[in-house]
This record gives sequence, structure tokens and C-alpha cells, in this order.
Amino acid sequence: MRKFMDEDFLLSGDTAKELFGKVKDLPIIDYHCHVPPREIASDKRYSNIAELWLGGDHYKWRAVRSTGIPEKYVTGDASDYEKFRAYASVMPKLIGNPLYHWTHLELRRYFGCELILSPETCDEIWELTTKLLATDDFTVKNIIRRSNVEVICTTDDPADNLEFHREIARDKSFKTRVYPAWRPDRGMNIEAGGYRSYIEKLSFASDVRITSIDKLFEAYRKRLDFFEAAGCRVADHGLDVYHRYVKPDLYHADEIFKEALASNGGISDPDKIALFKSEMFRFFGREYVSRGWVMQVHFGVNRNANSKMYSSIGPDTGFDTIGGTVSVTELSRLFDMMELSGGLPRTILYPINPSDNEAVAALTGCFQTSGDGKPRMLQGSAWWFSDTLDGMRRQMKSLASLSVFGDFLGMLTDSRSFTSYPRHEYFRRILCDIMGEWIDEGLYPSGRDAEKIARKICYQNAKDYFKF
Amino acid sequence: MRKFMDEDFLLSGDTAKELFGKVKDLPIIDYHCHVPPREIASDKRYSNIAELWLGGDHYKWRAVRSTGIPEKYVTGDASDYEKFRAYASVMPKLIGNPLYHWTHLELRRYFGCELILSPETCDEIWELTTKLLATDDFTVKNIIRRSNVEVICTTDDPADNLEFHREIARDKSFKTRVYPAWRPDRGMNIEAGGYRSYIEKLSFASDVRITSIDKLFEAYRKRLDFFEAAGCRVADHGLDVYHRYVKPDLYHADEIFKEALASNGGISDPDKIALFKSEMFRFFGREYVSRGWVMQVHFGVNRNANSKMYSSIGPDTGFDTIGGTVSVTELSRLFDMMELSGGLPRTILYPINPSDNEAVAALTGCFQTSGDGKPRMLQGSAWWFSDTLDGMRRQMKSLASLSVFGDFLGMLTDSRSFTSYPRHEYFRRILCDIMGEWIDEGLYPSGRDAEKIARKICYQNAKDYFKF
Amino acid sequence: MRKFMDEDFLLSGDTAKELFGKVKDLPIIDYHCHVPPREIASDKRYSNIAELWLGGDHYKWRAVRSTGIPEKYVTGDASDYEKFRAYASVMPKLIGNPLYHWTHLELRRYFGCELILSPETCDEIWELTTKLLATDDFTVKNIIRRSNVEVICTTDDPADNLEFHREIARDKSFKTRVYPAWRPDRGMNIEAGGYRSYIEKLSFASDVRITSIDKLFEAYRKRLDFFEAAGCRVADHGLDVYHRYVKPDLYHADEIFKEALASNGGISDPDKIALFKSEMFRFFGREYVSRGWVMQVHFGVNRNANSKMYSSIGPDTGFDTIGGTVSVTELSRLFDMMELSGGLPRTILYPINPSDNEAVAALTGCFQTSGDGKPRMLQGSAWWFSDTLDGMRRQMKSLASLSVFGDFLGMLTDSRSFTSYPRHEYFRRILCDIMGEWIDEGLYPSGRDAEKIARKICYQNAKDYFKF
Repeated sequence: MRKFMDEDFLLSGDTAKELFGKVKDLPIIDYHCHVPPREIASDKRYSNIAELWLGGDHYKWRAVRSTGIPEKYVTGDASDYEKFRAYASVMPKLIGNPLYHWTHLELRRYFGCELILSPETCDEIWELTTKLLATDDFTVKNIIRRSNVEVICTTDDPADNLEFHREIARDKSFKTRVYPAWRPDRGMNIEAGGYRSYIEKLSFASDVRITSIDKLFEAYRKRLDFFEAAGCRVADHGLDVYHRYVKPDLYHADEIFKEALASNGGISDPDKIALFKSEMFRFFGREYVSRGWVMQVHFGVNRNANSKMYSSIGPDTGFDTIGGTVSVTELSRLFDMMELSGGLPRTILYPINPSDNEAVAALTGCFQTSGDGKPRMLQGSAWWFSDTLDGMRRQMKSLASLSVFGDFLGMLTDSRSFTSYPRHEYFRRILCDIMGEWIDEGLYPSGRDAEKIARKICYQNAKDYFKF
Repeated sequence: MRKFMDEDFLLSGDTAKELFGKVKDLPIIDYHCHVPPREIASDKRYSNIAELWLGGDHYKWRAVRSTGIPEKYVTGDASDYEKFRAYASVMPKLIGNPLYHWTHLELRRYFGCELILSPETCDEIWELTTKLLATDDFTVKNIIRRSNVEVICTTDDPADNLEFHREIARDKSFKTRVYPAWRPDRGMNIEAGGYRSYIEKLSFASDVRITSIDKLFEAYRKRLDFFEAAGCRVADHGLDVYHRYVKPDLYHADEIFKEALASNGGISDPDKIALFKSEMFRFFGREYVSRGWVMQVHFGVNRNANSKMYSSIGPDTGFDTIGGTVSVTELSRLFDMMELSGGLPRTILYPINPSDNEAVAALTGCFQTSGDGKPRMLQGSAWWFSDTLDGMRRQMKSLASLSVFGDFLGMLTDSRSFTSYPRHEYFRRILCDIMGEWIDEGLYPSGRDAEKIARKICYQNAKDYFKF
Repeated sequence: MRKFMDEDFLLSGDTAKELFGKVKDLPIIDYHCHVPPREIASDKRYSNIAELWLGGDHYKWRAVRSTGIPEKYVTGDASDYEKFRAYASVMPKLIGNPLYHWTHLELRRYFGCELILSPETCDEIWELTTKLLATDDFTVKNIIRRSNVEVICTTDDPADNLEFHREIARDKSFKTRVYPAWRPDRGMNIEAGGYRSYIEKLSFASDVRITSIDKLFEAYRKRLDFFEAAGCRVADHGLDVYHRYVKPDLYHADEIFKEALASNGGISDPDKIALFKSEMFRFFGREYVSRGWVMQVHFGVNRNANSKMYSSIGPDTGFDTIGGTVSVTELSRLFDMMELSGGLPRTILYPINPSDNEAVAALTGCFQTSGDGKPRMLQGSAWWFSDTLDGMRRQMKSLASLSVFGDFLGMLTDSRSFTSYPRHEYFRRILCDIMGEWIDEGLYPSGRDAEKIARKICYQNAKDYFKF
């Protein structure tokens, strides 16, 4: 029996350990996450571990809520201490869940605390962490520094003024580069309420009066320039509810856009939604190609599945789930259409459902025609509900079997928290364990090639692909 | 090499063995099965092992039939001995199939027979078991007693008079509690033939003349009371062929119900089916909530896929298969609708397709809002075609990764046979092996918490959840 | 750490090694592949390894292209040496990919070369293999002889004159039997361009003027006779884009056929496509049953996903992917319809998506009613994107769990290359490893039964099922 989470955590053989030794100190490129740039700019401090851990983490909220603990102790008005105690009380039940490992990795790496969180240790950990969080080591910038993070890409709306990104960039003592990422979903969702006021916001930000699709494009182009000037190299699209792509058609897309403005996002005809979104993807595709940006596609989420809780506490609170309305075959049609209309950018695909792993890995191979010595379409690392020990193993083995493992882009946190960087360590351990197992079983020769692949997946591939 | 099915069967490490030692003698709560209460009440005896094993087990029928053995030796008019010989002849081919382990576990645990079933041992086993089956140890009640079963929930139609349940309850020497479970599918299936005569049966049982949906509800309420008085705490719905849920609407549901009565179940318009079933779920949901019952949902079966065999030998004979017409996203809409109309009960979800494991585990997290210290929606243990060694491992690892493993409800037999209780042993061994592996690899600390989780999953969680 | 691909490659325990010893020298029955019979008849020689390996293998093309290497070095006008160098440069990145193992198995088994392909060894391997390919050991017939191949089934259009099959049969010194397989997809695809000219070709081949569906059937019957005379025992259907089956109807199918002829394959109404194809399956089913042929169904491919590359370099160049338009439930309806109309032949199902493994394994059990001592419907070995180490393990474990492993038909190459036979060795090692693991863990008794099963899966089952 191995000690719980010892130094060889997740590394089952000598080859795995050796490989991990080569990659563990590589810097982190966190090319997709949801941390708030405002908190970096202000170099925020946290008054206690509940604020740090439970302030916005819907993974933890879900776990606590799932055991029947009242919402008061999850997102409600209980005190920070009470919320932490609720989380501590659930912890022992989370055997086999990534939260168990994330929690203890963070306690160890940031707080030097080897205790195991439970109702018994709750108070000791609360006190220890409260004390440490008050020290300078725990300002947001110092957490990031200590985590050896080279690049962070946040997730931002095109109408955002990026003031915090500029403020961060002005602090020359802070070496981590923090770039915005372009997430234009709200301008595409003509079926969602509040569409007109969103377009007004975009008009204001771009200084373009948006009355037609041409003007929408003009506004977007100005914002794309603005984002690019702030270092943005990557866009992100969430494909949740719609699922068809058709031949784009500027004339009708313009009509539909005007109708969406007039009805404030009340488009429900699936043909119109399909046509408008197809035209928008044609537009964005060309822009991304000409700018050399990467397009990320996160697809398949069934969002806000519980309307009652959505009405009560809003989005991103733990009520999203694995859907299935965007099929991999429809994605294939979307990319084919973009390719034909001259603009399929370098693309990363993240399926929400692990049962789609193989279909996605196979699909990427159909659009590999860059000819520029770099891959063009890649499957992203295991996402959200798959960002687990088994989920990552499954995604990596599928990717290796059906695609080119040596070109894999590796890990990102996708997190809202500044102490999630140990997820890169977790990933690196799992990666090295899989590779070590392959080598130990005689499935791949040991030596420099393996080491090179591990290092590239942990660092260099992302750097090269995004051209950071 | 380990001996075939030795005492450490399926337990690969010391921790697994130790954990199994703690759970192996816990009583069994078999909260979902299909054993006939009549045979308990009459304390039936079996004249031979073919009657016991091959009288109604479509798993075994399928296996025999799959090798090309004529139907005569499966469900036909061959003698019991010939049928057993046919099964014995197939047995050696079933490497990797759960039947191989179930068969030998039952031989060992009930008959003390260590022989391996094959054409060579067929006669010896036939004679040995025939002799033993004639002894008092092998009456149905004594089989159940010897199996340490605390609670059995059968599966019953609302029109059932539950006479056998009452008869069983009157036998004070029989300590196992045998409760009915409420399975109202027939009253919902307005697309199926024989609907009118079924409703007449329900009218008779409830003493309510059912001429409208209000009367249907009245009849159901009386039957719900009747079932509750017999100890029923759990309902069960099979969602096979329909797949959409809409806003319920009593007025139109009443019209559709009358049309279904008039046409004797000839409703084919999917909109009507969706509306009627949605209304019925609204009704049942409220009832279950107010009574504190648990709703089980078994979904996705493609039933009677072979019409020719269905015409010839009827349902439940081994011609059902994994379908896919009820999508997890539609279930999410159903539960959302029930929640909004005030009645989403505690619910257990059983997907027929293991590729839906993750989507189901994720979905349960969206409706965890009981706030009463108990989970509300849970994924059930690996069902039917997934009730295998690998299927159980997959389901448990998925559940642990995406949900709260410590709250898992554990095993049920889903069986039609009284010697299926060793499936609980099989499950417990697999559970302890997975947990032991996690602990031995340093993924979870050894100690009391792990032991507590194992014991709760094997016994206490079900007891608490169903409030037996 | 084990040496890379040593003699015990993939065999982790003594039982696995022992089992492999029993099966490794069994002849190969390659009952489904795409090798060109012309090259067997002419006993072709290859001038270099690029011609042998990279002349038509879309797996390798995909891998090279995926790394961003220009199409010139994939299917373009670069020299053979340059193409081989490109492949060598990609090789080290392919850790975890079956190409890594296939490549080195072929180097070892055919060329006696233990080098590991990489840019460093590229030239040495090029020279060594060029020299050897010029020797008599490397004519196509001698490659096949050295591979111990007893039967090859190619894949052929009903209009094919099978001249090369006849030529091969005339060479009495060549003992491997080379049979055609019947693939009538083109005559069914009334939605595809060029339909009329295809039917003209079929008219010419059959000497039947095809002006109606009756005449189409007459032509097909003559071609079925012709194929049968050439030893054909197996048909193959690819179900890519359509997905519904309805009650067949000769009268309307005839109308639709005439419309398809008139419009040269321009049928787009899904109801018409469904009806015509259902009628065709009814026809073919009866024919196959009466001839005792096996029907293979390969389903779910999204073909030519990249239209731009399709226009540029045509089909079968690496731009097909995992689709999903043919659902397992629809297949179930198709087989039910065929069974009812009197003609469901022995059938093998190959899903493209590994997430369908369990649904397919379960489905086969619904049509097992031959009663002739042989299985009737079987799941085929892991296909295409699943023909990988993990894909094969998954398929075999699923098949064993849900079906009868002892009746599994085992491996086929599905290849376009004459040096792909080591894929049978690869499969046999994986098979023996899985079985060895089951036995070593005490899940199945060691002994003659296990050995018998392994031998049957590797050879005898296919021989018996196809009646070669």
C-alpha cells in the first residue's frame, strides 16, 4: 500500500517517475480559463479559504449540494466558516472524485499542509489557511508567480474594455503574460433574451452603430483589432443548443439579424438560427484565419437544466450537464462549410461527453491540411465532467490511438480559481504514468523521444501552436 | 495464477480483502427485482435445477440460443434435463460473461458444489442439485433466509391485489420484509394495444369507474394508498419508446386519454403521447413527493426487437436490447418540468446504455436540492446489459468521478430467480476491489472512512434512502 | 521495463504466453480486406517500401498530414523516398498509435529488421528494404505464402468481371484461396450522382437491360450466380448516410428506381430513399439466405467530410470519419423487417463508433434463432478507428460480457496492403493476453477449454461460419 498522495502520486513505475522529473518544473501555459482579470490587476487577497475555494467553484457547490446540504451553505447566506465546514463534511465521501485530489494538492502545494480535510481537521485547516492567506505569499499575483505560470488566457466578451488586462500589462514586475480570449457567443445567440441590449453594448464598445449584419461585422472587426492589440491569439465558441449548419447566405442572415434586433432575441425558427450562425461562423472563420488565431470549440452542454435554480441563483452555479444536441457529424459539416468558404482556422475541439472522444479524435484528422509543419485541428484535453483521473486517461488513450499524441496540446485549468494550477501537476503525473506504462510494457522504446514528447505536451506544443 | 474463483475471487490486494471482510456478512436489501411473490407465499420447491435456473431467466436463454441451439431446448418443449444439458454445453464458451460467474457462485453458495459446469459435469451436477432441491433448505423462503435478505421489493402493477404480499406478511416466522413496488407503465402506454381492457382492470381494482383523466387519477390515488398500506416505498417507470416531454396540460391530456380509451390504445401522434405522458408524470411526481416515495427510471430499452419471436413466445424472453430513443437531455427536460410543477420526487436513474453513464452521473447533480441531508437524485447501479464485471467497474468509476461515491445506493438483483443473491456478493467484491485499488495506489487514505463508505454502499445507504 | 516489442510483446503473464504459443502458427483466414486482386494475379513486385506502404494506406496518409506536412509528401508528386522520409519523421510522435506497432511488426516479420523507424534510421531502412523487395521473397504471392494465409476475401462490385480472381485460381502452385466479396452499395445509392451510368455498367455485366426493379433483381441474380461460381460466400454493405427502414413495397420501389434512373441518382426525399433501400435489403436478404451467404454490415461512417480535399484527391484518402447517422435501433428495425419478410441471413455487424459496442453486442442476441448449431448474428472485430490496442480490448471485453466469446469470429485485416497480415499476430497477442489475464485472476479455469476457445477464435470459427 502506498502512502496517500506521496511524492510518487499516480506514478506507478520508474519510467513514469523519471519522465515526471523532466516535466514537473516546466512553466505553465494556461491557455483557457475563467479567472477574473480584475482580481489579478488589483492583486486581490482572500480573507479565508472559503472565499478562495468556495466563492465561485461550481464543482465544489455541486458536491456539497449533492449530499443534501441546504443551499444556504452552498451559495446562500451562511458564513464563510459554515460553508467551509459543509465542504469539509462532504470531503470523505468524495473517494474517486477529482475534488479529493485537487483539494489536497492545493493544501499541500500552496499551504504546505499535509492534513486530510474532514470534519475533524476542518478547524485546524481553517486557522492555518486563514493565517497564511494574510501573508504576502497569497496575493493573487504571488500565487500565480509561485505557480510558475508563463501565460494566462482569460475568457472575455468582445464588448469588454480589457482595462484590467492593460493594467496588468503595465505592472512590469509581474512577468506572467495575461491575454484576453475572444468569446463572442452572446452576439450569436439570437434565440436568447436581451439580444438588443447586448448589441447596444457592442455598439458602444466599438463606436459603430450596429443596424445591419454589415455593421455587426464592422463592429466585430474593430473589437478583434482591439483584442489583438491586447495580445489575444485565441477565440472560444460554446455550442450548446443549436445543432445545424447550412450554406451561409449574407442576404438572409442580414434579414434574420434585423429580426433578432427587433424581437430582442426572440428567434425560434431553427432554420433561421442555423442560417444566421452559419453566416457568423463564416465571418469569424475568415477573421481568425487572417489573424492567425486559434478557434476553440466547446460543445454539447445542456445549460441551466434546472430552471427553478436558474431563476433563483442564475447561471454557472452547478446546474449545467452533459447534453448532446451538437453532434460530431454536424461539427464536421460546419468545418467543411468554413473550409469551402475560405476560412477554417486552426481549431481545438472539446466535447463535453467522453463517449464522443473517438468521434472527435477521428474528425480532427479530416481537416489536417495546413501543410505548414504544424497540426491544424486538435482535440483538446479532457474537459469539465471529463477532467478527472479516468476521464484524462480515456481522452489521452483515445487521442493517441486515433491521432498524433506527440502533437497533443496538453493541459489547461478551465478554472475560476487562482489555486487551480496544481491541475497541471495532476495532468503531468497522469501523462507520465501513461507514457511510462507504454514504455515499461515494451510498447514504445525508452529514450530521448519519449522525454521530448512529454516535455512538448507539457509546455512547448501549446507555446508553438498559439504562437505565444 | 490464482485458482478459479477462490476465496479472494476478484480481490486483488490486501486492502480489498480487508474491506470485503467488513461487508460480506451485511444483510441484503434487494430494492428492485422481479421475483414472483406467489412463489414466496407458497414457499415453492423446485424439482430440479433447470426449473430453478432456466424457468424464466432470459439471460441464460439468450446465451443458449446465441450458439444456435434450437428454441426447443431454450423455451420449448424439451425436458428439463435436456434444457440443462444445453446450458451446460454452452457454459465453457461463456468466458468473460457474468453468467459464468453467477452460475458457479450459485453452485458454490447454495449447493456447496465446486464443480465447473460443462458437458462432462452436467450429469453429476444435475443429480447432486436434484437431491438437494428436495430438502427443506431449498424452499423459496429458506433460500431467502440463507441469503440473509432483509428486504425484497418486487415489481407490481397498480391493479395487482397484492394478495401474496399480504400472505407473506402474515407468516411471522419469515423475517424478510417483502414489499411491492409500483410500476404503472401500462396505464401510461396509450400507444399500446389492450389499453381499454387494462383500464377496466384498474377500474375493477380501484372500484372507480374510469371515464376521464380525473377518474384515472382518483383510481391511481386509491391504489397508491393500497400499495402504501402494503409497505410500498418505491415506484418504477420504464421509458422505452417515447422520448419527448412537454408542458403538461390537464385539459388536453383528458381528451387524449378518452381517445386512447375509445381507440383501445391506438394513439400514434407523438405530440399526443408526449403531452399525455408529461401530464401523467406531473401527477405521479406530486403523489410520490407527498408520500415520500422514490421514483426509479429505467430507460432506453428497445423492447421486442424481433417481432417474429415476440409473436411466437411473447415478451421478456431475451429479445430486448439497448435502444436509445430516450435521450438524457429529454430526461433532463422531464425532471425540470416536474420540478417546476411542484413534484420531482427522490429519483434513481438507470440507463440501459453504458455510453450514457457519464451523462447520467452529471445529470443527477442538477437536481440535488433537497436540503434535507440526503441526496435526492442518484444514478442506479449498472443495469441489465451493464450488470457485468466491466460494466459495474465502469459505472462505479464514472459515478465516483462525477458524483458522490459515498452516497451510492449499491446493488440490487433485478432478477426473476431466488438464487440470484450472490450477485450482491459479486458486486461487493468488485466494489471492495475498486476501493482497495484506490487506497493501495495512494489515491485515498486507508482507514475508517473507507470502511464506512463500503458498509454504507452495501447496506445502510439503501436503508436510509428508501426509509425501510 | 520490457524491451521494445520483444518476443513476449503484449503478453503479460505466463498463461498468455502459453496460449499464444498455441495459436501463433495457425493459418490466417482474412475474410474481409481491400487488397487489389490484380496485384495478386500479376504477382506484383514493389520497387521500394514507399510504394508498398504509402501507395494506398490512408491510415499512414492521415498521420503524416496531421503533423502539417504538405500534401505533396502525402499523396502528391514528391518522390517515393521523400514520402518515406516524411513518414519516418512522423513516426516518433506516434506513441500509442497502432501504426507504431504495425510498422515495426512489418519491418521485423517481413524484412527481419529490428531497427526503429525515425529520421535517423530512415536511410538505412530504405536501402535494406529496397534490396530485399527486389528478391523473389517479396512478390505479392510470396508475401502471402510467407504469411500463412489460407483464404482471402477481397471486396468487389457486382459489375466486376472477376477476371483476376479466375486468373489467380488457375495458378495451381498458389494455394491461398482468393474469393470475391459482394459489395452492392453503388446500386443502392439512388441519392448519389452517376447512378444511371452505374446501372448501365451492371446491365452490361449481366447482359440484362435494366429498366425496372424486376430487371434490376434479374441482373443481380445473374451476378450473384457469377460471384458464387467464383467462390463468393459473403456480402458486404456500407450504411453511411441513410438511416431509416420501412416496410418494403415493390410497387413503389419500382417507381423510385425509375425516377433514380431518370434523374441519374438525384433522389433526395428521405422517404423514397428509405423505401427503396428497404426493398433492396428485402431482396438481398432472401438471396443471401437461399445461397447460405453471410452479410456483413459496416455502419456509421461520415464519408468525405472534407469536400475540398474530396474534390482535389478523391475518396478513400483519409477524410472519412466516425459519423452516427445509422443508429443501432434503426438496424434493429431493418433486421426485424428482413426476418419478417423471410430473409435475414447470417450477419456480422461492424460499428464505426466504439461507443456503440455494447448496443451492437446486445442487438446480436435478438436475432439468434438459427437453431442449426451455429450462431447467426455476430459482432465483428474492432473496425477501422477501433482497430487499435485499446479498441480491440474494449470490443473483446464488451463482446464477452454481453455475448458468447467462444463464438467470436476473430480478426480480419480490412487492409489495402499485402504486408498487413501481422495485424493478425497483433490481434492474437491481445486476445491471448486478455484470456490469460482472466485465467490468471481466477475468472476462468485454466486448461483445454481456454486453449480451444483461443484456437477457434483465431481460425476455426471463421472457417465454420463462412463455410470455407
